[in-house]
Amino acid sequence: MRATVLHAPYEVRVEDRPKAALQQPTDAVIRTVATCVCGSDLWDYRGVNEVAGPMPGGHEYVGLVEEVGSEVTSVKPGQLVVGSFFASDNTCPNCENGYQTNCLHREFVGGCQAEYVRVPLADGTLVHVPGEVAEEHIPSLLACSDVMGTGWYAAVAAQVGPGDTVAVVGDGAVGLCAVIAAKELGATRIIAMSRHTPRQNLAREFGATDVVTKRGDEGAARIKELTGGIGADAVLECVGNPESMQQALHSTRPGGNVGFVGVPHGVQIDGEELFFSHVALRGGPAPVRAFLPDLVERVLTGRINPGKVFDLELPLDQAAEGYRAMDERRAIKTLLRP
Amino acid sequence: MRATVLHAPYEVRVEDRPKAALQQPTDAVIRTVATCVCGSDLWDYRGVNEVAGPMPGGHEYVGLVEEVGSEVTSVKPGQLVVGSFFASDNTCPNCENGYQTNCLHREFVGGCQAEYVRVPLADGTLVHVPGEVAEEHIPSLLACSDVMGTGWYAAVAAQVGPGDTVAVVGDGAVGLCAVIAAKELGATRIIAMSRHTPRQNLAREFGATDVVTKRGDEGAARIKELTGGIGADAVLECVGNPESMQQALHSTRPGGNVGFVGVPHGVQIDGEELFFSHVALRGGPAPVRAFLPDLVERVLTGRINPGKVFDLELPLDQAAEGYRAMDERRAIKTLLRP
Repeated sequence: MRATVLHAPYEVRVEDRPKAALQQPTDAVIRTVATCVCGSDLWDYRGVNEVAGPMPGGHEYVGLVEEVGSEVTSVKPGQLVVGSFFASDNTCPNCENGYQTNCLHREFVGGCQAEYVRVPLADGTLVHVPGEVAEEHIPSLLACSDVMGTGWYAAVAAQVGPGDTVAVVGDGAVGLCAVIAAKELGATRIIAMSRHTPRQNLAREFGATDVVTKRGDEGAARIKELTGGIGADAVLECVGNPESMQQALHSTRPGGNVGFVGVPHGVQIDGEELFFSHVALRGGPAPVRAFLPDLVERVLTGRINPGKVFDLELPLDQAAEGYRAMDERRAIKTLLRP
Repeated sequence: MRATVLHAPYEVRVEDRPKAALQQPTDAVIRTVATCVCGSDLWDYRGVNEVAGPMPGGHEYVGLVEEVGSEVTSVKPGQLVVGSFFASDNTCPNCENGYQTNCLHREFVGGCQAEYVRVPLADGTLVHVPGEVAEEHIPSLLACSDVMGTGWYAAVAAQVGPGDTVAVVGDGAVGLCAVIAAKELGATRIIAMSRHTPRQNLAREFGATDVVTKRGDEGAARIKELTGGIGADAVLECVGNPESMQQALHSTRPGGNVGFVGVPHGVQIDGEELFFSHVALRGGPAPVRAFLPDLVERVLTGRINPGKVFDLELPLDQAAEGYRAMDERRAIKTLLRP
């Protein structure tokens, strides 16, 4: 099968690899309908994370079930399914608590930029998308596999509720989806922090009421100005570097919440400063599986359209250009068609 | 009036100072019925915090209103009152949000180990204790002024609710009061981390169901053993050093909460580790004022008896011995009678 492999920083190739196959009776293999490049793939692509050897890329997928193991009961061949980037049994105590990305049996679903994908723990991981699914919904269903689920978790972790003022740090696909989540959860004021016009426009389309172009402590000061000197009720940190975390913490009101979903790189939080701020902090790899049934329904009923974050669509064979476009910020997010 | 003054590390004297007096029309002056020494006073006493000059001590008080400024309407001379260590207007946005210790007009109420105390913003700060108050309730009312309110906030910040398993790090007065709070908020399993028999006994009397004597990662491992390998739903960090914070974070289940009320000294939190733990963190100086009316009622109806943390009572003039006894861990907490 055709699949992407990262060989060294900035060197993505599409190659022939062995076709994904069942390994456990709880596995499924799906034929990929659509996959994509994630902002977090760029940490590897840019060499920020070490690339130890040839590395199959991608962890987002929507596809048709091709084959299931003997113990799989919840999905069957031919069904359209979407799943999270972490396989989970969905029955262990951590899953029951809503943290499927901390499942006691979790397994990363890698190598998804490929024609076929092996999904472990299929019963706990995959969600069947019912009915005849319109082609126009495919990008949004794909977004639910990670960025929409991650933006949703940022809002849930920051306890966004009706009437809240929410600020979003980061205008990548996750940050833009976090705007959708904040709106769906009832926020009445949503401040997108972005200095890129196309992303500002999409943020507004998704529900942002204000745009702040300043960054760092200047950005935080602007958030305070917009909120009567107090700060936002909730701030969604969707980047993951020390500056963005400081910006988030300093933009939040006493008693407010930061939900952080950008994988932290070099972030240290000063205990004393956090203490006196009264700000709460929850982050982590989003338990997308917890939100998927609800998100799929919101997509199919047309309530949300997170697929709009894909502003570049390419055949899988042109994945290298898809990575480049995102690295150079020419594209927000690249959808790949096998 | 007689009052304690810290002159240098380990050098507390009781001296004559000018009697507390009204400075603003919103002030009250109270005649102290009881005051005490706080665990946080020991940071100064031991020289961990620099002692720049002679420093009046104490920030906990219950007393009779002696005099009020011309704008004070909610309390009047002769009434028994209790208040927080931070004066607050109780009307600004931060107060309305329940974070009175981040009041836009907050003012620290220091020098309370004295016969009289000036309390700024009396209307927003003081809570009248109604009726004829039995002498036996005075220590518990005094505890509400800080340690009981702080233990309560630890539990609220950690979102303790019915059926939860809660671990408490720290067996000082705040940790012991946090056990009371966890029980009152419905926790069914409360694990006190303590290696001192009298404190273990008081923790059990207050509602602890288990005691763990190990510390650090060994202590955290023991909490995991006691919770099916998962960790506690909520951990209340009542110490404030790097080891206790690590112990708290490592004792919490994915998706659980740490409430931290020990003033952090040298605590740094690694963003990446916090991220992958899925643990939420909220701390800060407890907004005691938010809880005071409820806590006073629980004391007067005999539901809670946090005054038991005072295992040493001395006349104010012997305050130096009160500090020494706590420093040497001969006493949990010292009550002083002016």
